[in-house]
Amino acid sequence: MSPWKAARLGEHLSAIDTPALVLDLDAFERNLESMATALRGRSVRLRAHAKSHKCPEIALRQVALGAVGICCQKISEAAVFVEAGIRDVLVTNELVGETKLRHLADLARRARMGVLVDDPLQVSALAAVALAQGVPLDVYVEVDVGGHRCGVAPGEDAARLAQQIARSTPLRFAGLHCYHGPAQHLRAPEARAAAIASAVEAAQRSRKLIEDCGIAVERITGAGTGSFLHERDSGVFDEIQAGSYVFMDRDYGDNQRAAGDVQFEHALFVMTTVMSRPTADRAIVDAGLKASSVDSGMPGIWQRADLRYLKAADEHGVIATPQAASLSLGDRLMLVPGHCDPTVNLYDELICVRGDLVEAIWPIAARGALL
Amino acid sequence: MSPWKAARLGEHLSAIDTPALVLDLDAFERNLESMATALRGRSVRLRAHAKSHKCPEIALRQVALGAVGICCQKISEAAVFVEAGIRDVLVTNELVGETKLRHLADLARRARMGVLVDDPLQVSALAAVALAQGVPLDVYVEVDVGGHRCGVAPGEDAARLAQQIARSTPLRFAGLHCYHGPAQHLRAPEARAAAIASAVEAAQRSRKLIEDCGIAVERITGAGTGSFLHERDSGVFDEIQAGSYVFMDRDYGDNQRAAGDVQFEHALFVMTTVMSRPTADRAIVDAGLKASSVDSGMPGIWQRADLRYLKAADEHGVIATPQAASLSLGDRLMLVPGHCDPTVNLYDELICVRGDLVEAIWPIAARGALL
Repeated sequence: MSPWKAARLGEHLSAIDTPALVLDLDAFERNLESMATALRGRSVRLRAHAKSHKCPEIALRQVALGAVGICCQKISEAAVFVEAGIRDVLVTNELVGETKLRHLADLARRARMGVLVDDPLQVSALAAVALAQGVPLDVYVEVDVGGHRCGVAPGEDAARLAQQIARSTPLRFAGLHCYHGPAQHLRAPEARAAAIASAVEAAQRSRKLIEDCGIAVERITGAGTGSFLHERDSGVFDEIQAGSYVFMDRDYGDNQRAAGDVQFEHALFVMTTVMSRPTADRAIVDAGLKASSVDSGMPGIWQRADLRYLKAADEHGVIATPQAASLSLGDRLMLVPGHCDPTVNLYDELICVRGDLVEAIWPIAARGALL
Repeated sequence: MSPWKAARLGEHLSAIDTPALVLDLDAFERNLESMATALRGRSVRLRAHAKSHKCPEIALRQVALGAVGICCQKISEAAVFVEAGIRDVLVTNELVGETKLRHLADLARRARMGVLVDDPLQVSALAAVALAQGVPLDVYVEVDVGGHRCGVAPGEDAARLAQQIARSTPLRFAGLHCYHGPAQHLRAPEARAAAIASAVEAAQRSRKLIEDCGIAVERITGAGTGSFLHERDSGVFDEIQAGSYVFMDRDYGDNQRAAGDVQFEHALFVMTTVMSRPTADRAIVDAGLKASSVDSGMPGIWQRADLRYLKAADEHGVIATPQAASLSLGDRLMLVPGHCDPTVNLYDELICVRGDLVEAIWPIAARGALL
């Protein structure tokens, strides 16, 4: 990491060294509140996805505002959050290998731990470690409701795996994980609605088959920032796993909103500096793809509709500057990352500003927790 | 970062927790030697680009094998390498802002430091800090020889800036930086040759104009792993900045080679585990785009031509498995990253193996050095 810090507490925004990952605290807090409001007084609860922020300070605020706990995607990520005091963690992933299962068992002594399965071999391995270590584990069947990544087919396959879990002492069959990833970024609201309607049907059908076997399905969990109102209102899902809502990113911002959609705000920015102005139509900034992940496209440029971030090299961003655009060496721009999760994973600290001042610096403690 | 390590010294390859960044030491050492051989006995020297590896252990080996020093892309990266004992560092980038210039001056007390300019304002700012701090600085004019990123136009613009540097006491005009980035990944050997021929002409023309002003051009530096033989044999370039040759990546591997090209080997891998096998034609591994950067395309799969890495989510890789392919939960695959530089930047440690054993673990000390 850098031998010096990008910012110091109390200093002005303009003194931050760049590129730096900046959180607008006012917008961030409004996003937290908007999600809490969207779920308040309902039987659907929030289990915030911490893969988006990897930051315990944020997870603790989510729990303080009503989240039951968090999701993680990696067991090493989960360990960082349990260490920080989060007491209910669902690893929304399959865990394979003795090392990972041993860590899962260790964490299950300190927090309520859940995990997904989509294969009978995973169930037997989990049962063996839970028995050997004497720890409880919540086990969810991952159902492929449209993502075509992990997950068993809805219906009979899901029911078969649930039965195996139910008879695998001491595992606890906790329910179904039904996350539809690709639905999150379908641009048209009707397309998102249709994708989630299909996921709801698949979840419902799987639940019915399992219940027909005399096994209770306590929880159906899933959803993301792009679709969660549909799951909330489905009557089938009772837990929401949204994560990106705290930050928003350019990719989510590009979704067309339907009437009634919650309007989250861009709260996460990469602050960058113009370091070269080689031609009238081109400026180069010091934030390239090592500073703002480009897997979901180029970053946006905040409040500068006259500029466009054309392409990224490792440490250079090429900005198209039409004739009218004033932009000089040393000028600052705020980029809206194309995809918040992998962008956050590039930084060690989140520089939290309110107005023009640095109010806090939060460690991104689970940055690089890949295991 | 992860609260536990992916590997321990002396253990077997199969015990490494995944995903993990693995260096095949034998292949790596052959790559180091191949580059040294390609430049031995010539007037062209190597200044290895450390942005590819961010690892002082590697930089020290490059210098031990004859490299004059290293390049870095960021001043905070440079600080990590100076701290590790590298005594000649060229920041192949423009530095803008008082903070960065102050760090540059600090480093110039401990190492020979060079930096690029493409604007008169950068020259005057560098002169001011060098004068105030009483430190020497090597200043190179960056010439746009085809990359269309930073850099002044070849010819008169380059000569004008060189004259400004030459009269800006105490700056030292050190030469021209003429790197042609896009040429590195032109697939056809003839296309790379043509691009570099054009860069050589631009460098040569710029040098002549500067020398016509009575200013010596000590050095013309540039080149990368994909093109360096052309610069080596140009009679114009006298310093090579290749970096990726130590690792190679899938993108460089996709270049078609000409007769006589140096054959570097894939030495850098992301070790990954099959964690889900949901359908006969699909397996999911635990290395997604947070484990292997996808900015230059998907990773390759080492020695498994029967498999294909189709797409990456943050923490999932989707592998296409034809009917004949045997692949089970827990199986390991070695991925060849699409692009080594940003992939290395995702990890804290490089796990160095020889044969089947972990021989060393090297800190990626400049990981995340973005400033």
